[in-house]
Amino acid sequence: MAQTATLGLADVQALARRIFASLGFGAVDAGILADTIMRAERDGPRSHGLFMLPAYASSVRSGWADPRGVPNLERPRPGRLEVDGGNNFAQISMARYRDDLIAAARELGVATLSIRNSHHIAALRGDIEPIAAQGLIALMFVASRLWLAPWRGRRRVFGTNPMAFACPRPDGPPIVWDMASSAVALTDLRLAASQGHAAPADAILDAQGNPTTDPRAIESGGMLLPFGGHKGMAVALMVEILAAALTGGNLALEDQSAKTPGAMSARGGQLMLVLDPAGAGGASFGRRVAMLIGAIEGNGEARVPGDGRLARRAAAERDGVTVDAALLDRLNKLG
Amino acid sequence: MAQTATLGLADVQALARRIFASLGFGAVDAGILADTIMRAERDGPRSHGLFMLPAYASSVRSGWADPRGVPNLERPRPGRLEVDGGNNFAQISMARYRDDLIAAARELGVATLSIRNSHHIAALRGDIEPIAAQGLIALMFVASRLWLAPWRGRRRVFGTNPMAFACPRPDGPPIVWDMASSAVALTDLRLAASQGHAAPADAILDAQGNPTTDPRAIESGGMLLPFGGHKGMAVALMVEILAAALTGGNLALEDQSAKTPGAMSARGGQLMLVLDPAGAGGASFGRRVAMLIGAIEGNGEARVPGDGRLARRAAAERDGVTVDAALLDRLNKLG
Repeated sequence: MAQTATLGLADVQALARRIFASLGFGAVDAGILADTIMRAERDGPRSHGLFMLPAYASSVRSGWADPRGVPNLERPRPGRLEVDGGNNFAQISMARYRDDLIAAARELGVATLSIRNSHHIAALRGDIEPIAAQGLIALMFVASRLWLAPWRGRRRVFGTNPMAFACPRPDGPPIVWDMASSAVALTDLRLAASQGHAAPADAILDAQGNPTTDPRAIESGGMLLPFGGHKGMAVALMVEILAAALTGGNLALEDQSAKTPGAMSARGGQLMLVLDPAGAGGASFGRRVAMLIGAIEGNGEARVPGDGRLARRAAAERDGVTVDAALLDRLNKLG
Repeated sequence: MAQTATLGLADVQALARRIFASLGFGAVDAGILADTIMRAERDGPRSHGLFMLPAYASSVRSGWADPRGVPNLERPRPGRLEVDGGNNFAQISMARYRDDLIAAARELGVATLSIRNSHHIAALRGDIEPIAAQGLIALMFVASRLWLAPWRGRRRVFGTNPMAFACPRPDGPPIVWDMASSAVALTDLRLAASQGHAAPADAILDAQGNPTTDPRAIESGGMLLPFGGHKGMAVALMVEILAAALTGGNLALEDQSAKTPGAMSARGGQLMLVLDPAGAGGASFGRRVAMLIGAIEGNGEARVPGDGRLARRAAAERDGVTVDAALLDRLNKLG
């Protein structure tokens, strides 16, 4: 039986902060990144929590990402905050300029924060929820590593290309969903491979671009397919254009991480778009969001997208999280 | 064998303009709406072309939509153009304020046009392509009639909730895709029913909320399901919030068209969001979009989303379109 330890969320954050500090991040930045790790342990997916720390460490120690990189903001136009992320992780840019972004959205009604020369291997909800918690709607698009073939294609073109959406909810935490543009997640495929299970149909191709349900294909040159066929591919294309081409970041096609030993993160781009619901819809906005939520809850087995994570959050806040002892050993050696 | 007639695109536009004028639209507005009909005949889907004219007529003649309704713009904040559509069709508001929207996006970097108290039963690409043709990125979200159940749900909550994306392409017409949030289109289900074919799995529910592949279920209280399972539902929720709650329009749940004899259009809401790629990504933006296009074309059977319509467009511009004589008879009686 595997040894485990139970950690409170403050312990998770302290452990992650210590490791980030030991990797060379400054105290503030280590705290920002540790918060993203804690949020993933708390809300899921836990594959992006403590389990992801070795990937950060590898990207930093190989020299691919710069833990001392300082973001720099330019604002050539009022509604577009444009950041060079200093080859550091994108959360540091987002935390630094979040208040400016929110102020711009409140003043103009809509604003964006675009980041280039930056890395992002966290779940998106940790970035987007704090904006909706202040009463604003947010959309987020992230360029990532080259994994996804176009629908009916045979070669990779896109990253896994996650996007996320957050919206304030009357009398409760924001509605937040995030999703990859792929039909299945890499972590789920690796789990299926380790357990001898098949991958779903229409989810992956082998290295020759042929359909397969063997999840091991993904480790030998295989590739992911978009969710929902041509519609998911349309989403993947939009994410790639908004997160990389618009921001001045790298497309998955340009990203050099696969050719750089130790690099575990795309040097991609990220776009956060924020809308202030005050205005024409303002008076009725909360009422309409509540009406939608009410019509989804108790409707068969439907649930509000992302709300499954709130139950998990409550449990983690109450009970802490159970961490594999081998992972803890590995992390303690990191930091 | 069915009788048909071949119409040039100018003939299509003139016919549609005449019918819209006879329904009570002013000359300019009739021309705007006729342009949307021509674009759907030219690019597809033709279900939104001349075939849709009787639906416009029914909504107008029943008193549900107002062909003399005049849009009114308020601009409480620089980046948010907020329009009361005067209970007329949304294309009229969009055409009237398109230049203001584009100017705002160029000045601020990002801007939105939101419309409420308005109707939209056209394809979205006709609205969005002219913006990308001027070098801007556009996203569009439209609230529609109540048809879609949430994933794992048993009762309708959402409209078919289309969204669209457009992006300028170096040396060519813009990339434009539009898609419903449903797995299949109503028109395709009706076609399947008329031909005795089954609907795809996981695409519709019957009136009791049970899965079915009988397309006739949709005519007897059945409902649509989102594309791509829970991910498509997340998109549908986002569209509903942006197109209706944010704009101050009606959710599908609030729309009264199903209870109003003759009403064939939701009195919903529409959001157009425009981003100017000039800026950080500006110098390299076109190069990166071209790189994406190049990696999709010639990649197995993949194609750039929406590009199938360009071949259709070229053929229609060259050869005109073939129209069923019975439909033409019906249209001539309308106007």
